[in-house]
Amino acid sequence: MLGNFSYCNPTKLYFGEDSLNYLNTELPKYGENVVLIYGGGSIKKNGIYDDVIKILKDNGKNVAEISGVMPNPTVEKLYEGIEIARKHNVDFILAVGGGSVCDYAKAVSVSVNCDEDPWDKYYVRFEEPVCETIPVGCVLTMAGTGSEMNAGSVITNHSAKMKVGHVFADEKIMPRFSILNPKYTMTLPHYQMIAGIYDIFNHICEQYFSGEDDNTSDYISEALMRSVISASRIANKNPEDYEARSNIMWSATWALNTLVAKGKTTDWMVHMLGQAVGAYTDATHGMTLAAVSLPYYSYIMPYGLSKFKRFAINVWDVNPEGKSDEEVAKEGLKCMEDWMKELGLVMKISDLGVTDEMIEGIADATLIMTGGYKVLSRDEVVDILKKSM
Amino acid sequence: MLGNFSYCNPTKLYFGEDSLNYLNTELPKYGENVVLIYGGGSIKKNGIYDDVIKILKDNGKNVAEISGVMPNPTVEKLYEGIEIARKHNVDFILAVGGGSVCDYAKAVSVSVNCDEDPWDKYYVRFEEPVCETIPVGCVLTMAGTGSEMNAGSVITNHSAKMKVGHVFADEKIMPRFSILNPKYTMTLPHYQMIAGIYDIFNHICEQYFSGEDDNTSDYISEALMRSVISASRIANKNPEDYEARSNIMWSATWALNTLVAKGKTTDWMVHMLGQAVGAYTDATHGMTLAAVSLPYYSYIMPYGLSKFKRFAINVWDVNPEGKSDEEVAKEGLKCMEDWMKELGLVMKISDLGVTDEMIEGIADATLIMTGGYKVLSRDEVVDILKKSM
Repeated sequence: MLGNFSYCNPTKLYFGEDSLNYLNTELPKYGENVVLIYGGGSIKKNGIYDDVIKILKDNGKNVAEISGVMPNPTVEKLYEGIEIARKHNVDFILAVGGGSVCDYAKAVSVSVNCDEDPWDKYYVRFEEPVCETIPVGCVLTMAGTGSEMNAGSVITNHSAKMKVGHVFADEKIMPRFSILNPKYTMTLPHYQMIAGIYDIFNHICEQYFSGEDDNTSDYISEALMRSVISASRIANKNPEDYEARSNIMWSATWALNTLVAKGKTTDWMVHMLGQAVGAYTDATHGMTLAAVSLPYYSYIMPYGLSKFKRFAINVWDVNPEGKSDEEVAKEGLKCMEDWMKELGLVMKISDLGVTDEMIEGIADATLIMTGGYKVLSRDEVVDILKKSM
Repeated sequence: MLGNFSYCNPTKLYFGEDSLNYLNTELPKYGENVVLIYGGGSIKKNGIYDDVIKILKDNGKNVAEISGVMPNPTVEKLYEGIEIARKHNVDFILAVGGGSVCDYAKAVSVSVNCDEDPWDKYYVRFEEPVCETIPVGCVLTMAGTGSEMNAGSVITNHSAKMKVGHVFADEKIMPRFSILNPKYTMTLPHYQMIAGIYDIFNHICEQYFSGEDDNTSDYISEALMRSVISASRIANKNPEDYEARSNIMWSATWALNTLVAKGKTTDWMVHMLGQAVGAYTDATHGMTLAAVSLPYYSYIMPYGLSKFKRFAINVWDVNPEGKSDEEVAKEGLKCMEDWMKELGLVMKISDLGVTDEMIEGIADATLIMTGGYKVLSRDEVVDILKKSM
């Protein structure tokens, strides 16, 4: 049942090949001290950095930079960024990159004026900011996390072996605007493209695999999955296919901007397993999800059989005639497995650097969620991790 | 192809049985002079009026009322409302009702401080407001138009025989918040419920039946159609089914808040035909759409055959094996017809009061749209209207 909820997502999205020009529309709305945040420097090679800097200068902005934001941004990097932003007396944060850069920008936004340790406050105690937050805008260069239109932020603490996501309650933490140019995503290596695609797909699965009712959100989830599957098969063969990259980018945004979670308890167990693997290996996020997914879904399938049957029919076009519910459900997971292998996803956590010795530690680092079809015991977590090797 | 577009929809939605309480959260954000707008007085019978007035008084608001807003709000009623709002020095407009009341509230919002004639400016010349607009909030009592989360406003001018919709460009014209309580929709007569359901369904059709590409928007449209079909069959038998009414209400909002139009040229020809019928008969909006739909879609089907085939398979689960594309497409329209008859929709414009003598006038009043699969000639409009008799 949809039940009681609120929905508000004021992020303004500019989509398409010409979308960067809209920076000129947005920048005048904010103060002059801008902190520009980006990652490993690929934006300097592909020209996006130069284009952004020119627009910032044209708009009379005083720019400081936080560069080198890593794929799983660390708490140490957050502390460093907060210092830069404070010294610059920041009015506005512009994130140029993928989901990690956007997530990191939001973490800086809520921390600049925070008197407490932001790791403890936001990622351990899950408190909401009481300080003034800094507005964030994004120029997205990679499709996957949906961070461009939500209030989520994931930060990794290696010393604590924790990778933690906080979805902030206030829609003001969402980016004020995000610029989505599908062409930018074409500069990514194939490995990152398919990891992003699986991240998108799994975001939808995490919200879809809960509940027993006939909810509008589930229909929309099925639509987004179908669109991602169709477009990913085209992009996998031809990464330069603009239409396919457009549909992937747009689906990514809607997969994780809270819409398809309405009326759902949501699962998120694959993310918990994958994030624990990520905390131990620093492996690419989407690949950690891919590598644990089939053992997890095969394990919980009997507990949510009717939904897995629906998944098979509505997402994978499995013909149910003359088959038991379990046969239909299994056929759906087989279709999913075939698609994952077709894309070239990593299917084993051992291929991501996980060793037998790490399994117990990863299990300890795996947060158990309760919204899905089966609340796992620690033994079951260990078992799923072993089956993922 | 998705192409270039922007998306921003800042309306905050409060959904569920408890949602009216959030008026207490929202009202303090606005000034004390509130204009309350509602329709024929059904909200006085079902208690919603008393509940709203209590909350307004609790929040210290100074309330003026515009009552008697009709199902197709007229330009004369608009002029009357503008005078009331001006005299009251209005700070905030609260619409309590269905789509017509919300549409009307937006029309007042853009007109209070407008120096020109609002009919000429907004509904004839389609200009954007340059004056300050008044913030609007909605308490929705009927699902259908999507007006609760868009910037659209339809006004009827009987002397000009015109019913015209303007979708304003500025997202500030969208309601600041909307309160969606599925229980409120249960007070509607069956006729209004099914008319609203068909309005929702047709909003999706109007956006779906254009273009040849494999667009994320089309997948989402199919999802919303499937959800509406499924929930409508439950609600038609048992209008008190809260889950079904919830899914209908939520689908209605997403059917017309611009999302599924992204990357689409969109059709809207059924609405043009239906609105012309409405201008002549004052018939219920959703019924005017129902009564012209099958003649229209059957006529354009050959021009958009692949989409009508996809519609049959993805929305109506038609099995395409061993059938020609045209057979599949026709079977889809037959499924749609069966569903419409199952609900009890009006299938002929003659049953809405259209006479043979009106046909030419209705054809003259029908605006020809160019985004669908076939740009109609006036002769074709006449032909479709005759087939709808």
